[in-house]
Amino acid sequence: MRLPVDADRLRTDVEANAAFGRIETDDPGARGRTNLTGTGPNREARDHLVDRLDDAGLNVTVDAVGNVAGRWVPDGADPEAAPVAAGSHLDSVPEGGIFDGPLGVYAALESVRAMQDAEIEPDRPVLVVSFTEEEGSTFGNGLLGSSVATGETTLDEALALESDAGETLGDALSRIGYRGEGTLDPAGWEGFLELHVEQDTVLESAGVDVGVVTTITGISHCEIEIEGEANHAGATAMDDRTDALAAASEVVLDVEAAANRIAGSVSETAVATVGSLSVSPNATNVVPGRVELGVDVRDVEYGSMERIVSAVRESLDRLERERGVETTVARPFDVRPTPMSERLRGAAHDAAAEAGRTVLDLHSGAAHDAMRVARVTDASLLFAPSRDGISHNPREWTDWSDCAAATAVLAGAMARAAGAAEATEKRR
Amino acid sequence: MRLPVDADRLRTDVEANAAFGRIETDDPGARGRTNLTGTGPNREARDHLVDRLDDAGLNVTVDAVGNVAGRWVPDGADPEAAPVAAGSHLDSVPEGGIFDGPLGVYAALESVRAMQDAEIEPDRPVLVVSFTEEEGSTFGNGLLGSSVATGETTLDEALALESDAGETLGDALSRIGYRGEGTLDPAGWEGFLELHVEQDTVLESAGVDVGVVTTITGISHCEIEIEGEANHAGATAMDDRTDALAAASEVVLDVEAAANRIAGSVSETAVATVGSLSVSPNATNVVPGRVELGVDVRDVEYGSMERIVSAVRESLDRLERERGVETTVARPFDVRPTPMSERLRGAAHDAAAEAGRTVLDLHSGAAHDAMRVARVTDASLLFAPSRDGISHNPREWTDWSDCAAATAVLAGAMARAAGAAEATEKRR
Repeated sequence: MRLPVDADRLRTDVEANAAFGRIETDDPGARGRTNLTGTGPNREARDHLVDRLDDAGLNVTVDAVGNVAGRWVPDGADPEAAPVAAGSHLDSVPEGGIFDGPLGVYAALESVRAMQDAEIEPDRPVLVVSFTEEEGSTFGNGLLGSSVATGETTLDEALALESDAGETLGDALSRIGYRGEGTLDPAGWEGFLELHVEQDTVLESAGVDVGVVTTITGISHCEIEIEGEANHAGATAMDDRTDALAAASEVVLDVEAAANRIAGSVSETAVATVGSLSVSPNATNVVPGRVELGVDVRDVEYGSMERIVSAVRESLDRLERERGVETTVARPFDVRPTPMSERLRGAAHDAAAEAGRTVLDLHSGAAHDAMRVARVTDASLLFAPSRDGISHNPREWTDWSDCAAATAVLAGAMARAAGAAEATEKRR
Repeated sequence: MRLPVDADRLRTDVEANAAFGRIETDDPGARGRTNLTGTGPNREARDHLVDRLDDAGLNVTVDAVGNVAGRWVPDGADPEAAPVAAGSHLDSVPEGGIFDGPLGVYAALESVRAMQDAEIEPDRPVLVVSFTEEEGSTFGNGLLGSSVATGETTLDEALALESDAGETLGDALSRIGYRGEGTLDPAGWEGFLELHVEQDTVLESAGVDVGVVTTITGISHCEIEIEGEANHAGATAMDDRTDALAAASEVVLDVEAAANRIAGSVSETAVATVGSLSVSPNATNVVPGRVELGVDVRDVEYGSMERIVSAVRESLDRLERERGVETTVARPFDVRPTPMSERLRGAAHDAAAEAGRTVLDLHSGAAHDAMRVARVTDASLLFAPSRDGISHNPREWTDWSDCAAATAVLAGAMARAAGAAEATEKRR
C-alpha cells in the first residue's frame, strides 16, 4: 500500500493558501503571511479550502465555532463507522510562516486524494479538518476550535471571546460566513492524525525525514508578583532597600537552576523559562518597587513539572524571609503531558517503513490541536523538518520534498487507521 | 543677628505657588502639582515669582534660558561686588510635591525680606534665583538652567532641546514670555546657597531641624545590553539556550553584591541600583533574546563608584565566557562627587547656632542645581526634613514650622556670606 502522494499538487495547495494574507519582507527567501481569524484573508483561505475539498468530492460542513470538515465516504465503507480524521489549522500568528498549520490541513486532503488515486478504499469514512483559531492571535485562546470540539471550552464561552477591536468570535465568524451549526465531535472519531512542522531542529540535526511524537509536553504557566519598596536610588542606603528586581533576579536564576537540576537527573526533557519580566516604575534612578514575572514550565512527565513549580514556591518563600519582599504566585494555565496514541504511532512507523522514509520518535515541546483531541480519542502528531527550527516567522521553511515525504507517511498512517490495509488485502 | 523669618509669609508664597498646576488626588493629605517647563502653570508660577520679587523691591531679570533672578542691592552695599545668590527651581516632576524646588526659591526671597525687616544691610548684592527645568521632565536634561549658567551645556544646545510634543525649549520659553537676554553667570557670584527638602529620612530619624550637605554624590549611569538568543520555551532544551534574562539576572545580583561589598568596607555611602530592565520579546513562552538594563551608581567617593563600575564590567565579561551572551555597556552619564563649600557650611552652622536650630552634616544622594553651581563658585546645600522621606509624589510633605526653621538658617547663612555680620557689627 504505497500511496501516490503528489508533491506538486500539495505544493500548489500550500502556495495558493500562502497568498491569503501574504506579507512583503526584505528577505528574498522569506514567504510570510498574516492570517488572523475573522479577517478577509482568513475568509479567502477558508473559501479556498472548501473549494479544494469539494473538488476532491468531500462533503463539507462548518460547525458553530467555524471548524471546517470535509468528509469522504469511500465506496464500500460503512458511513456510520467512526471516521478517521486528520488536519490542523489555517490561521497564523501575525507575520508567521506559510507551513505552520496549512501543511497539516492540505497534507490530510492530499492523503485522501492519494488514497482515491490508488483506489484504496478504507472501511471507515475519512475527515479532513481545519480547526479555528489555533494560534490564539485574535481571540486570546489558542487551540480554540479543538477545545470547543473536545468540550474543554464551551461553545458559548468561545463565541463570546472578543478581539482587541471588541468584536466577538461569533460576530466575526458570522461576518465572514463561517458560523455554522453543531460542533465537531472528536469523541466519535476512530482517531486523529496531525502533521505539523517541527519548529525545532531535532529532525534536521538527525537528518531524518519524519518525526513521530511520543508525548506533547505538559505546560504550566506561573504568574509571579514581587512587591518591594520603590525608593530614590541615590538617597536610599543599601541596607534600607527592599529591591523587587534583585529578588526577581534570584527567582529567574532559581527557576533556571531547578530546570537544569531536573533535566540533568530525573527527566532530560524538562524545561523552565522566565520569559517575561516587567519592572515598576522601571526608571534607572529608582529602586524597583514591583516586578511581575511569567514562568513557563514544560515536560513530558508531570511529576518533574511539579518539582520545578515547587522549587519556584520555595524560592519565593525564601525571598520573603531573606529580603522582606511580598510575593504572590498564580498558576493560570496548567495542562498535563499528553501521550500520543501507541496504535497510531505504530501505524506511522509502519507507513514510514513502507514509504521508505526514516523516522524518529521525539516529544513535542509545543502545544497543538492534537493535544486537545487526545483528551477524547486516539491522537497522533507527526513532524516534518523545519529549516534551522525557525517558526512563527516569515523565514519558516520546510523543503517541498520534505513536505511530500511527511505527507506520504501521514497518508499511509491514515489509510491504516481507516482500515485500508485490510480492505486492500481483501481485494488481493 | 537673629533674622525675623516670617513663617506665614513663606507659607503664603509656597501655597500660592502650589496652585499653579495643582492636581486632585484621592488622598486628603496630599497637595500635588504638575508644573512642567513651558506650560500655562509654569508661566503662572514664574509670573507670580516676578511679582513677589518686585513687591520686595528686587530688580528682576530673565536670562536666555529662562532663569529668573531678583537682585537686591542693600543700602551701603557695593553694587559692583560679587553677589551672594540663593534659590532653587519652580518646575516639578509630573504629579510631584509642592516643596521640591519652590521652598528653596521662596525661602531665598523670605531671607531677603527678613534681612530687610531687620534692617540688616550686607556689603554685597543678593540674588534670588529660580533655575529653569531642574527636573528634566519636559526637555530631558535635568539641572538644565544651572547647566547653561555654569557652561556645562551651551545655550544653543539647551534652546534646541525638544519636548515630546516636538517644541524646542527656545520656542516654549518665547511662547510663555520667558526667553530673556544673556545668561546668569554664577562664576561671578560670591557663593550660592540652596535650601531643598531632603527627600530622605535622615533628618526625620535623627529629629534634627536642618541638614548641611557635605558632598553631593557623584552619579554614573551604565546602559547595558545583553544579547542572547530568542527561542521557543517548549522546544529548546536547557542546554541549548542562550537566555539573555538569566544572564541579566546575574548582572542585577552582581551589581547589588558589589555595592554591598563597597558599602560594607570602603565607603558606607556607596549605592548601586539596577532600576530599569526591559526584556525582548517578553513573552512567557519565549526564551528571552535580549535584555537592556539601566544601572545607577552613586557615592561621595569617586573611587568607590569606579570600583562598582569595574565590578559591572567584570560581571559582563564573565557572562560572555560562561553563558555565550554578547554584551555592551555604555556610560552616558558620569558626574563626580561634588564637595560643598566649607566656608558656606561653616556659615550655615553658625547661623543655626544663632537661630537655636539643631543641624546635622550629611551627604546628598540626589543631584541639585547647587551641584552645577559648585563647579564655578562656592556652593552650599541645606536640607529641610521630609516626612517619611517621600518626594516626587503628592504626599511629599515638610511641616511649615520646619520650613521656617530651615529658612532662618538659610537667611543667617546668606547674610553671613554677603557680609552682613560685619555690616551689623560696624553699626554697633
